[in-house]
Amino acid sequence: MKLYDYPQAPNPRRVNIFLAEKGIEVERVTIDLMQREQLNPEYQRKNPACDVPMLELDDGTCISQIRGIVHYFEAAHPEIPLLGSSPREKGLVEMWEHLAFMNGLLAIAEVFRNTAKGFADRAVVGPHNYPQSAELAERGARRVPNFFKDFDKRLADNEYVAGDFYSMADITTLVSCDFAKWIKAEIPEECGNLRAWYDRVSERPAVKANP
Amino acid sequence: MKLYDYPQAPNPRRVNIFLAEKGIEVERVTIDLMQREQLNPEYQRKNPACDVPMLELDDGTCISQIRGIVHYFEAAHPEIPLLGSSPREKGLVEMWEHLAFMNGLLAIAEVFRNTAKGFADRAVVGPHNYPQSAELAERGARRVPNFFKDFDKRLADNEYVAGDFYSMADITTLVSCDFAKWIKAEIPEECGNLRAWYDRVSERPAVKANP
Repeated sequence: MKLYDYPQAPNPRRVNIFLAEKGIEVERVTIDLMQREQLNPEYQRKNPACDVPMLELDDGTCISQIRGIVHYFEAAHPEIPLLGSSPREKGLVEMWEHLAFMNGLLAIAEVFRNTAKGFADRAVVGPHNYPQSAELAERGARRVPNFFKDFDKRLADNEYVAGDFYSMADITTLVSCDFAKWIKAEIPEECGNLRAWYDRVSERPAVKANP
Repeated sequence: MKLYDYPQAPNPRRVNIFLAEKGIEVERVTIDLMQREQLNPEYQRKNPACDVPMLELDDGTCISQIRGIVHYFEAAHPEIPLLGSSPREKGLVEMWEHLAFMNGLLAIAEVFRNTAKGFADRAVVGPHNYPQSAELAERGARRVPNFFKDFDKRLADNEYVAGDFYSMADITTLVSCDFAKWIKAEIPEECGNLRAWYDRVSERPAVKANP
């Protein structure tokens, strides 16, 4: 089994923290995004989505997308559950992980991918080139403060993002808060609940091991 | 238990087909998106994401987002699995469902939500208003043909989207193909694998019952 990885980028970091929390070790292969190695024909044959991380099983099956990889490992190693235990918890983790991804990570990516010089023709992840959009970068910049505010509100009544237990929803929210620094955004002073939660989860050994 | 629903829209349709495949019946409450009932304060208190569908459990827990709802039901009713059986299958379903959502449903929504008159200030799902973007509508229009081509290629070697078994990945892909008609796009003639698969899954009773 091999995990194709680029630990500097936010999406691989989500999986790396998840694996560290569960204590799972996997052989790694670096795909250098700065060199656009994710677009190499050999890699693209394995992963037509042309992104990292990607997990190659011993039978040759290739599973990409964070959701794909974490669900594989959660089912294979159910101890230390990070996707919820009961049906209710599982539903809440998926819900809040999705909201953190859509309104956090993707909103920040709207700014980053549409303004960074190195992404001039790479505004969308995947095999196809699309030009940057100034309008989309502007929209992203308006969305990020709302992400912080909405999650601050959620954390007023909940110890963790999905409820009273730590989960993959916390991992994606934390990685989004750190990814926001790439666009010079940070958790506002007035978001005290989110800031306290951020400080708390940042202290976890699995998070510290994957900065 | 109550499912807040608006069966005319593509996202609720994904859950409705899923429930019909599993033979699960749930009490429904209509949230009329045309009347913007998803933004009513009472509904927003239950579902801060302000969208449909949303599942309210008997203990008052509210689970929104398609992923949240289907994972709740898959765990509560594991018979007739639609999210995969083995770890490998579970990984593949999440991967391909995510790709259908990101590159199909969201690309089509980029066109629809940024051009439809009724969505003038509602370019992003959720509680916050954002203006439409002509650049984003244009980008979406360029992405949709690539979605069809990429999934046609996937279906050249696979009976269903996630592999040799029917799953939630097929449901989201099918709903995306039908949602594309809202922006006057359809599966191109040359995408024979995708067309054959589309005709096949469209014949399923659960799909016919949720047109």
